[in-house]
Amino acid sequence: MEERTEIQDLGEFGLIDFLTRNIEIQNASTILGVGDDAAIIDHFGKQTVVSTDLLVEGVHFDLMYTPLKHLGYKSVAVNLSDIYAMNATPTQITMSLAFSNRFSLEALNEFYEGVYAACEKYGVDLVGGDTSNSLKGFIISVTAIGEVTPDTFVKRSTAQKGDLICVSGDLGGAFLGLTLLEREKKIFLESPDVKPDLENETYIIGRQLKPEARKDIVEFLEQENITPTAMMDISDGLSSDILHIAKQSNLGVILYEEKIPIAQESREAALKFGLDPTAAALSGGEDYELLFTMKQEDYDKIVLNEQISVVGYMTDISEGAHIITKGGNKFKLVAQGWNAFKQE
Amino acid sequence: MEERTEIQDLGEFGLIDFLTRNIEIQNASTILGVGDDAAIIDHFGKQTVVSTDLLVEGVHFDLMYTPLKHLGYKSVAVNLSDIYAMNATPTQITMSLAFSNRFSLEALNEFYEGVYAACEKYGVDLVGGDTSNSLKGFIISVTAIGEVTPDTFVKRSTAQKGDLICVSGDLGGAFLGLTLLEREKKIFLESPDVKPDLENETYIIGRQLKPEARKDIVEFLEQENITPTAMMDISDGLSSDILHIAKQSNLGVILYEEKIPIAQESREAALKFGLDPTAAALSGGEDYELLFTMKQEDYDKIVLNEQISVVGYMTDISEGAHIITKGGNKFKLVAQGWNAFKQE
Repeated sequence: MEERTEIQDLGEFGLIDFLTRNIEIQNASTILGVGDDAAIIDHFGKQTVVSTDLLVEGVHFDLMYTPLKHLGYKSVAVNLSDIYAMNATPTQITMSLAFSNRFSLEALNEFYEGVYAACEKYGVDLVGGDTSNSLKGFIISVTAIGEVTPDTFVKRSTAQKGDLICVSGDLGGAFLGLTLLEREKKIFLESPDVKPDLENETYIIGRQLKPEARKDIVEFLEQENITPTAMMDISDGLSSDILHIAKQSNLGVILYEEKIPIAQESREAALKFGLDPTAAALSGGEDYELLFTMKQEDYDKIVLNEQISVVGYMTDISEGAHIITKGGNKFKLVAQGWNAFKQE
Repeated sequence: MEERTEIQDLGEFGLIDFLTRNIEIQNASTILGVGDDAAIIDHFGKQTVVSTDLLVEGVHFDLMYTPLKHLGYKSVAVNLSDIYAMNATPTQITMSLAFSNRFSLEALNEFYEGVYAACEKYGVDLVGGDTSNSLKGFIISVTAIGEVTPDTFVKRSTAQKGDLICVSGDLGGAFLGLTLLEREKKIFLESPDVKPDLENETYIIGRQLKPEARKDIVEFLEQENITPTAMMDISDGLSSDILHIAKQSNLGVILYEEKIPIAQESREAALKFGLDPTAAALSGGEDYELLFTMKQEDYDKIVLNEQISVVGYMTDISEGAHIITKGGNKFKLVAQGWNAFKQE
């Protein structure tokens, strides 16, 4: 970027006008968008779904290796992922930002390009927000709003004994991408002359920097007339997240290591870093895939979908939560961290 | 506070469980609240209203003189004020926080006491949120959701020529409270032994630290069958905010200085600080009173309500935006700052 426009030259209202100048409303439900005290949404005949995330520089993202456009896209996508995880359709977002004066208008504009790209991809309208100074760092708050046909939303607490456990896409890639980026950052800080070695790693880097929300899976389930018995998105890792469903549904879990979907690129990266690919999938987090349970009789409807893997089933709570390894051993599932395989 | 419990001892999920343990749902529209990927709201037959605010320590509030309970209350109230300013009724909020490890569980609990007090006062449900670390400072993001009978919401852009300009309550107090608190902070930092002189100033301090949203005014207008032609809340000061309505409605403004409601306590404080009470009302901000325009024929319905003052009227855009002083002089209204009185 060559130009640098100071944000104070525009003022708060000028800034909002600039950042929202190209908004085109995509949803008939958006009655009133940006520019008043509040937005107005019309979900007649539907229930409204709301989710919110707060992202803090240095805690949730590192601008040293995160392009602002990707960050804008990801901030929206991960929040929409929560709406899809309710079996609902996102329709609007609000986006609030706080930033220090090291941010130029051009930098903010780049961030918003990513925001608008995600809005377009997922068909949602940006309808409000707030901008302010921060004393330090970039802070992003996103609220996503969606709609769902009455009482077809899917909670975490309603899985049944015997239900199949399914995940979309593949797991572990986002964590391995983060591992690579952190490694390259460390090398760069120690030896700024060394060129980062990111070739052949675009898959895992993309998984970390530009995750997608699984709109396609929710649409597929609807088309196939499958209502998951429980669902959530995988933000903390498969272990931690299936344990949420188990705990809230008062059930146990059996997972099969060999059934956990892991991309070839992720396996290779894990081996290169000396990490266990299964551990990355279980505990890595940030994949934003959907994790859901469904009745066994729906199995035939999903078996041909390569984007859905059955990884285990729900058991009685008395059986606890376990994973059966490829070698046939049974380990207790634990919520977090690299001690995922702790023998009972 | 005697006790100090470290937040990391609970973990994120334990913390959320603790902070939300006493929630009682107040609205039939709250189908699903805290504890899943998203909340579900049912506004059948109504339109949904959404507003969001991001508050940053050191920019929007100073914890040196802001009790956490008041801050929690204010964070909710100022956001609800935006919903009322649409002529709507708030029903739910989400609340996200980021905080550094200098915050104990007891401190967060105090903040949430204020949040829940405001929720109870205004009859709204806390239905979601997010908590995380911050590298520095306390960050609060609130999204308020409300409902409105279809197409009865009131925008800023729909005032008509000849409409009366009304404000609720009184103005300038919040700014004068802030001025006092900043002055006492400065004295304290210079001479920690001097006891702060806050006696007899509870009114203006209360206006700054614990503002209320004007639910009563919106209810009164509905009861009297008055639909304002335009409305917003006064967060930046009467000058700046009436200029928003004028600009968006493509009109001019005449205000009368003598009609601007200023509490006796605010007048006395302004004189003590050597400030012009009218300037405090015009440019002070943060009063969170409602500013609305209405048809002249509705005047009889509001004349007996002591909480509503008519302060001027909307004119043709060619006449510009002016204030007539008590002395009969005409000054141009400017958006911000202490040069509010700049003679044409």
